[in-house]
Amino acid sequence: MRLLEKKLSSETVYRGKIINLRVDRVELPNGLSTEREVVEHGGAVAVVPVDENNEVIMVSQYRHPAGKVLLEVPAGRLEEGEDPAACAARELREETGYEAREMRLLFSFYTTPGFTNEVICLYLARGLVYRGGSPDEDEFIRLRRVPLEKALEMVCRGEICDAKSIIGILAAGRETGILLK
Amino acid sequence: MRLLEKKLSSETVYRGKIINLRVDRVELPNGLSTEREVVEHGGAVAVVPVDENNEVIMVSQYRHPAGKVLLEVPAGRLEEGEDPAACAARELREETGYEAREMRLLFSFYTTPGFTNEVICLYLARGLVYRGGSPDEDEFIRLRRVPLEKALEMVCRGEICDAKSIIGILAAGRETGILLK
Repeated sequence: MRLLEKKLSSETVYRGKIINLRVDRVELPNGLSTEREVVEHGGAVAVVPVDENNEVIMVSQYRHPAGKVLLEVPAGRLEEGEDPAACAARELREETGYEAREMRLLFSFYTTPGFTNEVICLYLARGLVYRGGSPDEDEFIRLRRVPLEKALEMVCRGEICDAKSIIGILAAGRETGILLK
Repeated sequence: MRLLEKKLSSETVYRGKIINLRVDRVELPNGLSTEREVVEHGGAVAVVPVDENNEVIMVSQYRHPAGKVLLEVPAGRLEEGEDPAACAARELREETGYEAREMRLLFSFYTTPGFTNEVICLYLARGLVYRGGSPDEDEFIRLRRVPLEKALEMVCRGEICDAKSIIGILAAGRETGILLK
């Protein structure tokens, strides 16, 4: 069975600050056509900073779409043309004040490929050195250090509940040999 | 520091098939105001079906926003008022033909809370029994059985690259004691 769809037409219905929205008409493998809604996003990075005591440096931040404060790993959007690793270092410094001697790409993934092209590059940061830093003016965040073992428990209890943070903490747990109970 | 934002106004700019888009004006903790773009989504489920040989039943599907075929765990959107566990059983049956004697919620998570309220409830399905089934008319998918150990390698190599599938496979690896190499 063929799987590919062919774009027949495309209409941008919204151009915004962080996202654009377009509605495409596509031809399905069976020859019929349908509409596909696509949220265009420029991509982002996330960083799991794990210090020498195996504590994860996380940020609490109000997320308007969720309507509540979420505890997440540091993250931010790519600036145009920015290298993801450089972006990860920048966001880590801005949000937490830390630099990392070792920054390693864990995974790149589509956040939710049914309706957006957003890709997040997720890094593991070790060898942390405090240099000081400050978030963007319109970012209001609170830092929290969470022992990795506790972070894994919080994932299981649903207290850490966004995709990039769950992936980051599960992967960091594997890297360090700390497993879910 | 306060973190909460207060909604001042809200305008729906698009109502679609799968998503709506609204643009809210919010008051920030410092008293200034800004716009927040919110993609409204009714929620979804995903299922990691692991058979008695520790093979994961996955689906290949063309994802128009990504512009390519992705290998993912079975998933689908909640119908209005539908119970997530019932939806997981329905999607598993429709996409793979299997029923599960054991269906357990692993995690519920925001896919990308910076711009959408979408939540996915992710289940682990064991005790699989083949009953037959068929995808929706406008769904074109190909089934693929992947040994869990190989699926973990494919996550590491970036060949499985969407958030829900990565979370599901990492979690299933932990459950069964199969670890990343």
